[in-house]
Amino acid sequence: MHEDCAFMDQAIRLAEQGRGRTAPNPCVGAVLTRGGEVVAEGWHTACGQPHAEVEALRDAQAKGVDPRGCTLYVTLEPCNHQGKTPPCTRAILEAGVPEVVVGCADPNPTVAGGGADFLRGRGVTVRMGVREQECRDLIADFLVWQTTARPYSILKLATTLDGKIATRDGQAAWISGEASRREVHRLRTWCQAVIVGGGTFRADNPSLTCRLPGYDGPQPLAVIVSRSLPDPAQDSNLLSTRPDQIIFWTTEAQSRSIRATRLTELGVTVWGLPCLKTPAETLDLNAGLQLLRKDRGCHYTLTEGGGHLAGSMQRQGLVDELRIFQAMKVLGDEEARSAFAGRKALSMQDCWEFRLVEQGFFETDLYLRLRAKE
Amino acid sequence: MHEDCAFMDQAIRLAEQGRGRTAPNPCVGAVLTRGGEVVAEGWHTACGQPHAEVEALRDAQAKGVDPRGCTLYVTLEPCNHQGKTPPCTRAILEAGVPEVVVGCADPNPTVAGGGADFLRGRGVTVRMGVREQECRDLIADFLVWQTTARPYSILKLATTLDGKIATRDGQAAWISGEASRREVHRLRTWCQAVIVGGGTFRADNPSLTCRLPGYDGPQPLAVIVSRSLPDPAQDSNLLSTRPDQIIFWTTEAQSRSIRATRLTELGVTVWGLPCLKTPAETLDLNAGLQLLRKDRGCHYTLTEGGGHLAGSMQRQGLVDELRIFQAMKVLGDEEARSAFAGRKALSMQDCWEFRLVEQGFFETDLYLRLRAKE
Repeated sequence: MHEDCAFMDQAIRLAEQGRGRTAPNPCVGAVLTRGGEVVAEGWHTACGQPHAEVEALRDAQAKGVDPRGCTLYVTLEPCNHQGKTPPCTRAILEAGVPEVVVGCADPNPTVAGGGADFLRGRGVTVRMGVREQECRDLIADFLVWQTTARPYSILKLATTLDGKIATRDGQAAWISGEASRREVHRLRTWCQAVIVGGGTFRADNPSLTCRLPGYDGPQPLAVIVSRSLPDPAQDSNLLSTRPDQIIFWTTEAQSRSIRATRLTELGVTVWGLPCLKTPAETLDLNAGLQLLRKDRGCHYTLTEGGGHLAGSMQRQGLVDELRIFQAMKVLGDEEARSAFAGRKALSMQDCWEFRLVEQGFFETDLYLRLRAKE
Repeated sequence: MHEDCAFMDQAIRLAEQGRGRTAPNPCVGAVLTRGGEVVAEGWHTACGQPHAEVEALRDAQAKGVDPRGCTLYVTLEPCNHQGKTPPCTRAILEAGVPEVVVGCADPNPTVAGGGADFLRGRGVTVRMGVREQECRDLIADFLVWQTTARPYSILKLATTLDGKIATRDGQAAWISGEASRREVHRLRTWCQAVIVGGGTFRADNPSLTCRLPGYDGPQPLAVIVSRSLPDPAQDSNLLSTRPDQIIFWTTEAQSRSIRATRLTELGVTVWGLPCLKTPAETLDLNAGLQLLRKDRGCHYTLTEGGGHLAGSMQRQGLVDELRIFQAMKVLGDEEARSAFAGRKALSMQDCWEFRLVEQGFFETDLYLRLRAKE
């Protein structure tokens, strides 16, 4: 069992290498093992490419490994239907793999039935549920795509130990260290839209680009959530360098204003979003997210603050994942900006609860990855 | 080298078992190893008891292990002077230990010279500095006792991910989980005084006792820091159950008030502390801490909040160690109580910086132990 977990963990790590390129498919990883050792590996590298199981079988072939003596570990139940690629179950049967260990069941098996039952019916030993929670977490993005019309939404925060994201005047440079900031730039390479509030747009004058050395891929859309649009003539890194990659989310009334027209003339996109009834006059952020997916093909969004936007996202149930970079420092000023803002919580029972799914360090910053507690 | 670290880590873990009982001595641990294995162990269990090296040698004798074939790992340089016990260097020489590996040097060698040089001069191989930082951290309390007139001061916080310690109305029950709260009760068994601010005293009506099942040892003093003393007739767990274990820290003027007299009649102690010039009118907490050590023999204090007291302690340079129990939840209310309060910090450069020395979990709460960054 301990060995099972170690192999599945390796399959999970492989799966993560595809993150950002597999959409609308899930990230999946697989290893072939023999005699307690991993002898071949594979993962779904990108949409349209072979599935992880097939990649692992190809790797075995390239290495001269006979899969008939191997066990296949795969993070997600093998598919049993013809999609862009042939069903993985067929590849497994043809290769003669006698045993398959599955992380989590296919959450959405087609009418053809689950791959596990299909394999079992043809004499393959199938075990399910090794590192089940971790393997289900691995496809959390896929589940959002399957069950909603919006992108998978990540909220990123850089905080002090006392939960502050900026001074009372809005200065945030820099809470987290260089390694954390590099990681955020890496996130911007696979999140197709970065979302910030109007306060952050005004206080930080951000570019919201990936500036990793040597990176020359596409830059994320810059989404700015603000009930009042800025003066198009104002000094702004975003407006002056890449207006055609900016989308403002504002009220419907503001989207019909003269400012909106002038911003549009610069190449900027302005979307008027409906308002929610509760909390009153709050922009319906889900409407904006859905438009990002429908109109711009966004599968991942990265919300980077500030506190009011973080609070609104959370209140509207739109935070699929929280990534916190926590600097080992204390600001000590209760009037400095809190990581989350905008609601009156009168009891500790009002807390939003999270489940820690990953924990590590970027230099001395503590890194926490969390999901809503089910 | 890897083996060296593993052995020293074990010595460090042993040393920690004495925490709270060794004062005014440091916590020290030792292991004897032979052929890559630990064959005997010892630690300084309490003031007046043998030092760690001697305990390890006794353990060897009890187990029939000949120390002449062993290496001794000890977290702190062996003492070379006659104190309550004979010098450890003599015991090491008499036992014939050929090699000694030391974590950190004695920070305060007596005129007789360091133990390492003494041993080297008599043919013992001595290596210094294995896990040096960790071994120095182990005696941080001892260094405070040696270099100041106050107790070692621990600040404990239970926070949400957004740095809140209570709702805007002051409700804090419960941020952290049961396991974290048990750990705090365990801390109260060896910190001789628990310190809280007047706000916490009024909002929580705390007992500040150790309530671990089966615990019947002494209870910590309850220190309440408040510029204005409470009405002695008010409903208070502390005043009604253990007035003679309460000390109020208040202004000198307030300590001469009628309330002070009436509280004293109940058995309560009231100390008027001088005020600092900057920040103006702030109680000199160091004066209170020094009195706790001088009058009450306190070697450890545990400050448990709220935010203003935490901020004052930190501003006055009186936090030797910070222990944070971080619940995986978000309150989302920027007006809820922050973990630290009471100063205006206009730049991120004003942050107090910490160094993480230990990290773990109590159930799902993240546990961080930190020291001021040097």
